Amino acid sequence: MGIRSKLSSLSPFEIARLLEAMEPRNREILWRMVEQEDEGEVLKELVEDVRQKLIDQMDTNQIIAATQDLELDDLADILNDLPDQITDEVIRALDRQDQIRLESVMSYDEDSAGGLTNPNILSIRRGLNIKSLIRYLRSLEKLPENTNYIYVINRNNEYIGSVKLVDLFTEDSEIQIEQIMDSQVAPISASSSAEQVILTFQNLDLISLPVVDKKNRLLGEITVDDVVDAIQDQANSEIFNMAGLDDEDDIFAPIFVSSRRRAIWLGANLFTAFLVASAVSLFQSTIDQIVILAVLMPIVASMGGVAGNQTLILVIRGIAMGRIQSSNAIRLLSKEMMVALVNGTFWAIIVSIFAVILFQTSWEIGIIVGISMLLNIFTSAIAGVSIPFLLKKIGIDPALASGVMMTTLTDVLGFVAFLGLATLLLL
Amino acid sequence: MGIRSKLSSLSPFEIARLLEAMEPRNREILWRMVEQEDEGEVLKELVEDVRQKLIDQMDTNQIIAATQDLELDDLADILNDLPDQITDEVIRALDRQDQIRLESVMSYDEDSAGGLTNPNILSIRRGLNIKSLIRYLRSLEKLPENTNYIYVINRNNEYIGSVKLVDLFTEDSEIQIEQIMDSQVAPISASSSAEQVILTFQNLDLISLPVVDKKNRLLGEITVDDVVDAIQDQANSEIFNMAGLDDEDDIFAPIFVSSRRRAIWLGANLFTAFLVASAVSLFQSTIDQIVILAVLMPIVASMGGVAGNQTLILVIRGIAMGRIQSSNAIRLLSKEMMVALVNGTFWAIIVSIFAVILFQTSWEIGIIVGISMLLNIFTSAIAGVSIPFLLKKIGIDPALASGVMMTTLTDVLGFVAFLGLATLLLL
Repeated sequence: MGIRSKLSSLSPFEIARLLEAMEPRNREILWRMVEQEDEGEVLKELVEDVRQKLIDQMDTNQIIAATQDLELDDLADILNDLPDQITDEVIRALDRQDQIRLESVMSYDEDSAGGLTNPNILSIRRGLNIKSLIRYLRSLEKLPENTNYIYVINRNNEYIGSVKLVDLFTEDSEIQIEQIMDSQVAPISASSSAEQVILTFQNLDLISLPVVDKKNRLLGEITVDDVVDAIQDQANSEIFNMAGLDDEDDIFAPIFVSSRRRAIWLGANLFTAFLVASAVSLFQSTIDQIVILAVLMPIVASMGGVAGNQTLILVIRGIAMGRIQSSNAIRLLSKEMMVALVNGTFWAIIVSIFAVILFQTSWEIGIIVGISMLLNIFTSAIAGVSIPFLLKKIGIDPALASGVMMTTLTDVLGFVAFLGLATLLLL
Repeated sequence: MGIRSKLSSLSPFEIARLLEAMEPRNREILWRMVEQEDEGEVLKELVEDVRQKLIDQMDTNQIIAATQDLELDDLADILNDLPDQITDEVIRALDRQDQIRLESVMSYDEDSAGGLTNPNILSIRRGLNIKSLIRYLRSLEKLPENTNYIYVINRNNEYIGSVKLVDLFTEDSEIQIEQIMDSQVAPISASSSAEQVILTFQNLDLISLPVVDKKNRLLGEITVDDVVDAIQDQANSEIFNMAGLDDEDDIFAPIFVSSRRRAIWLGANLFTAFLVASAVSLFQSTIDQIVILAVLMPIVASMGGVAGNQTLILVIRGIAMGRIQSSNAIRLLSKEMMVALVNGTFWAIIVSIFAVILFQTSWEIGIIVGISMLLNIFTSAIAGVSIPFLLKKIGIDPALASGVMMTTLTDVLGFVAFLGLATLLLL
């Protein structure tokens, strides 16, 4: 009983985090203790992987009961993960109007504007004055929570403009709503991507945005609180992608499931590691004669990797934030090359001196470390700007593959430049 | 004139991105073309580094003119970057009420709840009924844009509860506001951190939150659109910190400024690279005798690095999202160790076989590569869970230093395990 009353004092978000933080076995025990009225909100907050597992163990009636109080856009997200037969039954349990609305939301991808749309809005026909609008509002039992705008449509349900709720208090009640209506904010098309939605909200500092279909018919609105979740998802998946992870995975998934998911990334890396080793193997006889080269070569590779990664992250984020486009890419490239030249030269001198002092190598080897490092840092700056643009052009998410490509490149180049120069100059 | 009319069709957000995407010289030319009424909003949207440079070239009157239409919380952010004397003059240009409000916001850190607070809200004394509240609203010239709540205070300005604006339309106009007032949502303290604000909004799915000072006096509210910016900043700085970058830097800063900023990180990495090289140098005579070891050793180090990084990012993000706390860290640790064991063993077998086939080494060396790689992957899982917790305990941002520590550890460990085992077993 202690757990139950503790549970009911938590928000659905907190319960979801608690469930995600548990091993599958304990998770199911706790899930059974969640109050039915919270179940839908908790499901909505869970990562896909965990949600899926909990839903798999519920029967259709339990799912209907759990999801009946959800907003339609959230319900749509959950239904997307269910077998068609159960989805149909859940939809049949709704009233007619909600069925139509839900189906319109579900026809769009989860990560599109349509998928983020809440169809539960207030819309009115044009031609009313403020007084009759207020009378209409009073006749409703309850307004949708957090209503900021009332949307004006024509007889074909086409979007015309929006009226701020706050203005109803201060404007003269006899004037027509068209006069206080804002028709400046263009509605967004339901087929737009989640990224476009995020950019539009940031761009115009919006708190809500009307959504229309191809024929300009009003489907609903996207509110900024849903955009918050979309932004979190975007940032999360970018960070996770850099390490070949998926942000919708259960962190306590069974060991073999987690292992398999990560194995792919390790395998890809093993392939590139063998590439790097093959490059080194070309210079076996050089290393055989001057063994200190094997000691110093990781320095050259790692400094190139660090410098390249700095440029890479700057560019990947810059593209995502709209600060970097192809129009300023060339200027950025030349700037990054200059920075690489300055830092590369500075650290090349330092590394040359320390290589000689710390490892008692000859000054020739010291200079070769420095020059090959400068070369590696300089090339990595070029790669750091080019790789994300190239990947984007061929339709691969830069966050996903740039890091591996960069590491492979700076490793191969670092080793080859260093060992190659040594072979040329010292043997 | 073409540019000017193009400019006026852009939103402040777009103009800010455009300015950031330009070289300093062109930036100043464009800045002079921005309409005065947009200047404040554009300044607000710029990264700190660029904003600072533009403001440095404006005189006090220009700054006052540019910032006069800003919301007070945004004005406070900008004033924080200005010399005290100019700040004082800008404040003196405000009306008395705004002066008091602004000073209360400015007394809090930019990244605290107080710094995110918008003091321009509607608050009323308790004891009114709905009818008189509506009459009061009608008497105002304009309500603050995007008002969702009206806050109820007592005679000491202490927060009591909040009334939803939408409820004013549907509730009976004779009842007291206390009856429809929500006193459930606890106000947040102005000294709370931005992270706490973000967590609270996500936790309770809020669209606005009242902010109080230490004595429970109402200061204003935080709205979800400001939280959107805070979330973007948080995600951005996490990604940038991983590469030792600062997300508030100008990407087109002068070359020597950028070089100096990045040099620190390269220097830190050079130090760890020398550590790694020193570890390798202990085994010079081993490499001298079996040169293929120098070829294979990068594989061992890099596979440990990749596996360790996966655990690391999972844990850093998990902590930031509230999915991982010290209470489930041990279970996560044991799970990550099991995953490392499974994947380490699997890839150790693969790498042993391929090392023998591709590089014609002896099977003993093949097995030593495999075992040392397994060892490295396994240890990196332990480090991936422990490092972020250790750093957090000693007050260092895990995103900033974890990556370098992990790379150094897996490099040193990979080389030492591999070369050490080879020395022990083969010589």
